[in-house]
Amino acid sequence: MQTLQTVLDKIRPLDSEWRNITQKHLDQLTKPPGSLGRLEELAAWYVQVTGKFPPRPPKKAIFTFAADHGVVEEGVSAYPKAVTAQMVYNFLRGGAAINVLARHVGAEVRVVDIGVDHDFENLPGLLHHKVSRGTRNMARGPAMTEEEARRAVGVGCQLAEEAVREGVGLLATGDMGIGNTTASSAITATMTGKPVSEVTGRGTGIGDQILKHKQAVIEQAIRINRPDIKDPLDVLAKLGGLEIAGITGLILGAAAHRIPVVLDGFISTAAALIAMALKPETKNCLLAAHQSVEPGHRIALTALGLHPVLDLNMRLGEGTGAALGMGMVEAAIRILTEMATFEQAGVSGKEAK
Amino acid sequence: MQTLQTVLDKIRPLDSEWRNITQKHLDQLTKPPGSLGRLEELAAWYVQVTGKFPPRPPKKAIFTFAADHGVVEEGVSAYPKAVTAQMVYNFLRGGAAINVLARHVGAEVRVVDIGVDHDFENLPGLLHHKVSRGTRNMARGPAMTEEEARRAVGVGCQLAEEAVREGVGLLATGDMGIGNTTASSAITATMTGKPVSEVTGRGTGIGDQILKHKQAVIEQAIRINRPDIKDPLDVLAKLGGLEIAGITGLILGAAAHRIPVVLDGFISTAAALIAMALKPETKNCLLAAHQSVEPGHRIALTALGLHPVLDLNMRLGEGTGAALGMGMVEAAIRILTEMATFEQAGVSGKEAK
Repeated sequence: MQTLQTVLDKIRPLDSEWRNITQKHLDQLTKPPGSLGRLEELAAWYVQVTGKFPPRPPKKAIFTFAADHGVVEEGVSAYPKAVTAQMVYNFLRGGAAINVLARHVGAEVRVVDIGVDHDFENLPGLLHHKVSRGTRNMARGPAMTEEEARRAVGVGCQLAEEAVREGVGLLATGDMGIGNTTASSAITATMTGKPVSEVTGRGTGIGDQILKHKQAVIEQAIRINRPDIKDPLDVLAKLGGLEIAGITGLILGAAAHRIPVVLDGFISTAAALIAMALKPETKNCLLAAHQSVEPGHRIALTALGLHPVLDLNMRLGEGTGAALGMGMVEAAIRILTEMATFEQAGVSGKEAK
Repeated sequence: MQTLQTVLDKIRPLDSEWRNITQKHLDQLTKPPGSLGRLEELAAWYVQVTGKFPPRPPKKAIFTFAADHGVVEEGVSAYPKAVTAQMVYNFLRGGAAINVLARHVGAEVRVVDIGVDHDFENLPGLLHHKVSRGTRNMARGPAMTEEEARRAVGVGCQLAEEAVREGVGLLATGDMGIGNTTASSAITATMTGKPVSEVTGRGTGIGDQILKHKQAVIEQAIRINRPDIKDPLDVLAKLGGLEIAGITGLILGAAAHRIPVVLDGFISTAAALIAMALKPETKNCLLAAHQSVEPGHRIALTALGLHPVLDLNMRLGEGTGAALGMGMVEAAIRILTEMATFEQAGVSGKEAK
């Protein structure tokens, strides 16, 4: 396996020339220039990341990383920890929201056990990459060792690389892990410098009292662990989750191979904050699919400089927002490649006025 | 053909019980209650309009009504009038944006010549319902007679009825007509009472000088024609377009048969303002697909009490925004019908906290 540094070294700035080529073609299509708004931007973004024109509708894969969180023992979630493993079974049977939305947009869901506190045996369809049986309680000490965090990031990098080799042209991130909004809030507060109270929300639906407790737990975790903001892997290890580390790796691996990545919600942006701190150019490969209800998500997106495509009041995770975002990217690619030009269609252009 | 009054009489208030049944089912699915946000609302809306549970993924049809506008002779558009007919040919060959996006979401595009200033002969695939060869110049007198407006509304009603008979379960509106943002601004100003300057935008992309002229033309049209706001058909006839009247009819016909309608942008909301004024209960069957760039669109949506699903900075028309909105409605229906319940999946529910 290659080292993280090798992956980071491969991530380069993008060439704006691809964006210009795309916009020039878009302006020849039978529509007023710019009239497809965000779809035109998505088409230009896709071409710029991949550096290929014209693009083809890509094979699409959503990686849903599952892991457990030691901090759940502090009572920060509305659901019991067992739900993480139960939902993995649900994903594999195709009954979860991510399965439905992935089918809807024609994407494959790849479920990764990167740290669930459950033995799945050799469950077919599950990608077995367990680094440990969940993190330790970050309110009492580091969630992971740096070595565990590095291994989990490595899993994500490796999965991205394998996907590239199979010809996947569009990746999306997803997560399952009871307790992971707590970890994501801790990372987001640390990486953006915002107060914990501003980046912490109700997750799967906790009440006011538990919300206050959740914030206190996160503040304690940050106080005890003293994460070093200059060392993103230190922040990830001390406050993160194995699925968050896996997503960080997937993003970096994709960026190294110039594969566009559609980010899901709050958990994915926490992972992206770590990835971008490790290598700022990573940002160019990222698309924010949607604006989640979690208050920290907006703050993370602002820090990342990303503008979400959809705002559907969602807060489920799993990759559900990203799946819908993938559908939009595909629509944009099809606009670019399937529409007739003014010349082809014999349609008169704009009158000089 | 049935009279307009017969159609209006069939439009009834909806029963909220269907919404409750849907939400109850949504809350049993393997996700935190409400966590799919807008998708859950779309599912409940679809069931409430149709009055059938569980729904099936519907057959989808987008009606793109094409017509010309006499007011174009005032020099209000960035494109020559000939583009309306040229784009009809483009639609029929499958090269326009609406064709691409309809294919993307699995919907059929039905192109209707309701008033194009061109002889299409017996062009296959085109629905021939020409009421006249375009409207007259509304800056000099009424755009249509009331009889022409009624006939165009009747075409829309009839097409909705035929679609229902074929088993179409989700309709969308679309338009093509050089000059039709001018007509839509005139209708929106009249029906909402807002100043012309607030509801008039750049359409396909006119500059500042033409925009001022366009506003002056609209003000003149309203002043000369003295539309009677208490008589929506009078407003439609004097300031409207044949495609706008067709969309009004499609909406009314769909509402009479409890078929949900996804509205495209500004032209479609102008038509919806007329439909809702004729029968307020029509509103319940309508979904606003997206927020267009046209400033009058936001004002019309507010007047209609509709909240758009998407905001993609689009301003193309044809039904392009509605096509993407249809994809979201289908995603919502599939969530409702394809997800496993907590019981089926053996997933633990929320802990009482």
